[in-house]
Amino acid sequence: MRYFVTGGAGFIGSNIVDRLLALSDQHEVTCYDNFSTGLKAYLQPALKNSRFKLIEGDLLDEMKLVRSMERHDFVFHMAANADVRFGLQHTRRDLEQNTIATYNVLEAMRHCGVKGIAFSSTGSVYGEHPQIPTAENAAFPTQTSLYGASKLAAEGMIAAYAEGFGINGFIFRFVSVLGERYGHGHVLDFFFKLKKSPQELHILGDGHQKKSYMYIHDCIDGMFLAIDQLHTNSKGKTHIFNLGTDEYCEVNDSARTICRSLGVNPKFTYSGGDRGWVGDNPFIYLDTKKIRELGWRPKYKILEAVEKTVDFLKENHHLFASAFNKEL
Amino acid sequence: MRYFVTGGAGFIGSNIVDRLLALSDQHEVTCYDNFSTGLKAYLQPALKNSRFKLIEGDLLDEMKLVRSMERHDFVFHMAANADVRFGLQHTRRDLEQNTIATYNVLEAMRHCGVKGIAFSSTGSVYGEHPQIPTAENAAFPTQTSLYGASKLAAEGMIAAYAEGFGINGFIFRFVSVLGERYGHGHVLDFFFKLKKSPQELHILGDGHQKKSYMYIHDCIDGMFLAIDQLHTNSKGKTHIFNLGTDEYCEVNDSARTICRSLGVNPKFTYSGGDRGWVGDNPFIYLDTKKIRELGWRPKYKILEAVEKTVDFLKENHHLFASAFNKEL
Repeated sequence: MRYFVTGGAGFIGSNIVDRLLALSDQHEVTCYDNFSTGLKAYLQPALKNSRFKLIEGDLLDEMKLVRSMERHDFVFHMAANADVRFGLQHTRRDLEQNTIATYNVLEAMRHCGVKGIAFSSTGSVYGEHPQIPTAENAAFPTQTSLYGASKLAAEGMIAAYAEGFGINGFIFRFVSVLGERYGHGHVLDFFFKLKKSPQELHILGDGHQKKSYMYIHDCIDGMFLAIDQLHTNSKGKTHIFNLGTDEYCEVNDSARTICRSLGVNPKFTYSGGDRGWVGDNPFIYLDTKKIRELGWRPKYKILEAVEKTVDFLKENHHLFASAFNKEL
Repeated sequence: MRYFVTGGAGFIGSNIVDRLLALSDQHEVTCYDNFSTGLKAYLQPALKNSRFKLIEGDLLDEMKLVRSMERHDFVFHMAANADVRFGLQHTRRDLEQNTIATYNVLEAMRHCGVKGIAFSSTGSVYGEHPQIPTAENAAFPTQTSLYGASKLAAEGMIAAYAEGFGINGFIFRFVSVLGERYGHGHVLDFFFKLKKSPQELHILGDGHQKKSYMYIHDCIDGMFLAIDQLHTNSKGKTHIFNLGTDEYCEVNDSARTICRSLGVNPKFTYSGGDRGWVGDNPFIYLDTKKIRELGWRPKYKILEAVEKTVDFLKENHHLFASAFNKEL
């Protein structure tokens, strides 16, 4: 099988690249990434493999995308603006990098005859849902962020292409993902804040915001399981799965784990309020019965995933320092 | 109040323009239309009114849009690619004319400080829903057409702008609308087919496709009622309403009404199958309890709306003949 991984130099994408290369000697993998947030360092293992090919390209460059996608069998579409937080400052970003980029991926698939796509959607598409835990077929939600709206828009196009052009769409609605190569979110923010000022940690919101996280390899296990079981015998189907652990933590719990892992004991201060920023969902907690019925179980607890993330950051913070001008 | 009507030269838009001008001597109305499907003939009544202004412009021309929208209070965003049928032939059309165009409208509103928008969405966002009649909060649907997906994308952005920027969003999910100035769909198609060949009418599908329609003035009544009751006391809210009659007809019923109205008695032939084309919803039938609770009732039955549409076409088919090269 020949796989095409958009955002293959990013957090989830690069882990998928490694997994695909390891799974079978028959798999060939192309990474398509514009390196806006992806890092070449994450592709070091893959670049040693003759079955791997790296293309530096942007999803908004339709001509390059369609030429690059030729002769592939399946697309993992992981490239995205993944930061829900700055939607209101940069309203065009989610539209271009998520909605229009996904359209371009689907068009390239159509032109190249690629018959399957796995898409990294998000629990944010449920908005602030009254049903918690939230199931895939919960009541039609109202969007609360441009990020969620753009992922919903992408989901809709994938389903319409599945119906209209006979491709299979695998839509995975994730909680936030943690682990090796994690590159944005509160664990990173706290890590760098504490590296700079270990005496104090300022937390947006009141610290009681509940958060559900999942470890990257649990996330990939879930995606691969669903695709393995359902792709071959589907045609023109859209399969939607929530992926998350069946627990949650408060931001405070996570902060304490990070501090312990770093060996610091700061005073916590709070900006107050029940959410970190406008559009921040106070609580995304997903009902994962559907994927569990296929046999999936997450192997890691949330706070274990936090620890693994801090371990990764301890060894690799120089990558962020150079890439994102993070101060140390 | 100063109203900005996108697609104001179109079917629904031009009827809204007339209604707004008639409602109050204080209302000023700007029509913004690119005349891709809108017709200047529909604005003849409005053009005689000093409170009306016509701007020929495209929603993809962001600079013109934002300059045109200055000093308005409320937007009726009716401009769209309204034809669900050709999504698969022209996949970019729904993305550009519905999704991106709506983004541009929202951005212009943000820059101009406009605090309310009414949006013509569609029952197509429910896909092929298992719950019929379908309520606004029915189970999270899977999209089946690029048209529905693009309207869903637009809905999501409107809700996210409401949450993030404090505007009010009024989202109306219509069944198909019929009446004066109607310009696409099966009544028009049948009308011109019968004008050309009154002996035979070829119907896509098996003729038993169930369809729900609504008369244009019932549709506008519903929109205005919801906005009147909810806009003033809302801030940053998204209000979603289905609008439709509580009846449905088969395409055959409608065809017979059209024939009777035209005084012809053709032989019906069928392409077969339970839908007209790939992506055609076999049945959209909306639960309208929510808008009815505000006091709305449709005044016209579906077949009355069909008759009124045929009456309009009889008097105005020359408009279509010149605008769309319809043969007579």
